[in-house]
Amino acid sequence: MSETTEALRDAEPRARIVATAERLFREIGFQKTTVADIARELRMSPANVYRFFGSKAEIHVAVAGHLMSEVEAAAQQIAFGPGSASERLRALVIGNEKMNAERYLADRKLHDMVEAALDEHWPAIDAHIDRIDGLIESIIAAGMVTGKFAKGDPGLAARLVHTACIRFCHPRLMVEYADRPEPTSAQMIEFCLAALRAGVAV
Amino acid sequence: MSETTEALRDAEPRARIVATAERLFREIGFQKTTVADIARELRMSPANVYRFFGSKAEIHVAVAGHLMSEVEAAAQQIAFGPGSASERLRALVIGNEKMNAERYLADRKLHDMVEAALDEHWPAIDAHIDRIDGLIESIIAAGMVTGKFAKGDPGLAARLVHTACIRFCHPRLMVEYADRPEPTSAQMIEFCLAALRAGVAV
Repeated sequence: MSETTEALRDAEPRARIVATAERLFREIGFQKTTVADIARELRMSPANVYRFFGSKAEIHVAVAGHLMSEVEAAAQQIAFGPGSASERLRALVIGNEKMNAERYLADRKLHDMVEAALDEHWPAIDAHIDRIDGLIESIIAAGMVTGKFAKGDPGLAARLVHTACIRFCHPRLMVEYADRPEPTSAQMIEFCLAALRAGVAV
Repeated sequence: MSETTEALRDAEPRARIVATAERLFREIGFQKTTVADIARELRMSPANVYRFFGSKAEIHVAVAGHLMSEVEAAAQQIAFGPGSASERLRALVIGNEKMNAERYLADRKLHDMVEAALDEHWPAIDAHIDRIDGLIESIIAAGMVTGKFAKGDPGLAARLVHTACIRFCHPRLMVEYADRPEPTSAQMIEFCLAALRAGVAV
């Protein structure tokens, strides 16, 4: 069997395992969920689950990756969608905040997985930050071309905007600063837009 | 005995207990350090330590408060010292980063206390953030008066700058992002200064 055919055949069960694991993580917590629990929900044997994932840890990483990939897909739609560079940057930061709040704040049990991911430095997080950086960069680069933003290094500008907005997308900070109403993400993005329009010698 | 006299008499032992506790927290960790350990180092009885602090938790809070008060004192010197508003803002953010790195990164054992303080939402942290906000505000207000910065709400502007720079003063983020060299705090403060000069309608 070719690798492609095998990938296609495996796609559906993999996705179902990830979706079921995510639901159980939300319901009973990611520490308490066992591979046997996931298999039972799917009416398959644990051995069958292990055909797709080498360990429970691999399922964790796949669930985290799936949650972040949804955020990335929404950000990508905004980055390459209609609107001025400023409008898209606003929509991306505020959309990102909203999706992260839905994922990691509303659900205390899912937040435990995020804590583990952060504590253990799962590489998926770094990749996620890089992808969001890249999407912000593409918006800023477009704004620099049209003259909306001052000329400069769009990659560095993207990392500055993303870092300035970290309090609105980092799950831990969203919890820690929940009681501080200001600045809002809307205020922060206007602050960043002012800097991008003015340009900065860095 | 008047309250003032009593406060004077108690000042020295309180400070010595806090200084000794801080040293032991660095050496053997704050979880492992007992009130008996602190008393032994000071050649006093645990009962005597308890005259000044109602519980071990109160000593923790006093040590954290002392560490943060040193950062605040340095920030205050900069805020009310010489130099333009931009120069003082640069010095404050970069000085803050340096002092926090010395306090919380170099010393893994002390970092454990910071983790506990963050997890348990010690009120001292909120007070510290407010005080640094206030010092940044006083610099920005001065810059607005001299026309260096565009007119606006200096309190909100201070919270925006402080939040944008959070990756350079929050002990957890300093650990999490240690492997990401950019943006630097110097780059971030120039970005914020560009926004402050341009002004922003928020």
